[in-house]
Amino acid sequence: MTQRVLEDLSEAECFECLKQETVGRFVFQEAEGPAAVPVNYGVAGTEIVFRIEQRSHIREVLTRPVAFEVDHAEAASGVGWSVLIRGAGHEIGMDRVPGLLRQMGEAFPRPWAEGVHNVWVSITPRKITGRRLTVPYVAAIR
Amino acid sequence: MTQRVLEDLSEAECFECLKQETVGRFVFQEAEGPAAVPVNYGVAGTEIVFRIEQRSHIREVLTRPVAFEVDHAEAASGVGWSVLIRGAGHEIGMDRVPGLLRQMGEAFPRPWAEGVHNVWVSITPRKITGRRLTVPYVAAIR
Repeated sequence: MTQRVLEDLSEAECFECLKQETVGRFVFQEAEGPAAVPVNYGVAGTEIVFRIEQRSHIREVLTRPVAFEVDHAEAASGVGWSVLIRGAGHEIGMDRVPGLLRQMGEAFPRPWAEGVHNVWVSITPRKITGRRLTVPYVAAIR
Repeated sequence: MTQRVLEDLSEAECFECLKQETVGRFVFQEAEGPAAVPVNYGVAGTEIVFRIEQRSHIREVLTRPVAFEVDHAEAASGVGWSVLIRGAGHEIGMDRVPGLLRQMGEAFPRPWAEGVHNVWVSITPRKITGRRLTVPYVAAIR
């Protein structure tokens, strides 16, 4: 097996990674235990933005400590990266949405399913960690 | 935008989905809050199997209520699915590993990074939920 090396990402590198993907997982703790659900997200400055439905059960857990996970794996090479954001979520007032849309540009978060996803939410990071798995050059050319 | 429909998956359909992917997220609660880390997994019967390092911090949270999330999204069509398993984790004795390998066949869980990942762990599902997002035929041909 080719040797692979795991390295920590800086916060700036984490955001570069986050801007390359569109699906992440909102991670939260509820009565039944920890859980994660995939959402389409956008990055506005240092905020993770996504949209949920009025009736979503996510609204109840949003202001507790939550996390957001994004990863990317290339099956052929086995290289990839993962980023974990810990922070607090909050609902975004509609007055802030136009400004966020400008910041996100093309990375507008499109909801997974049909329905009125008119609650915009944001996770403000408290701690960001990331790791990248690479194949060292020497090992890769063998 | 094409209309998309979200439908619940049966337990059997969830396992069919799980067998199509190789990377999932181990979801747990720790002192800092909820967290998720990607791992390469295999499916042995109804168990989710992956490997961790001796020194992994996952070992500390393994026997608490945990979850395992896998999803798949097709960017072009917007269709996809997600599965969430809630359950308890446990370390697997090495005597059980040969039997699990036979059950998993080609889906042998390969660790993400270098290191001695000789602790095999399993999540025994207590509750399995899944959703599939599809584009209805009528809408798709428009």
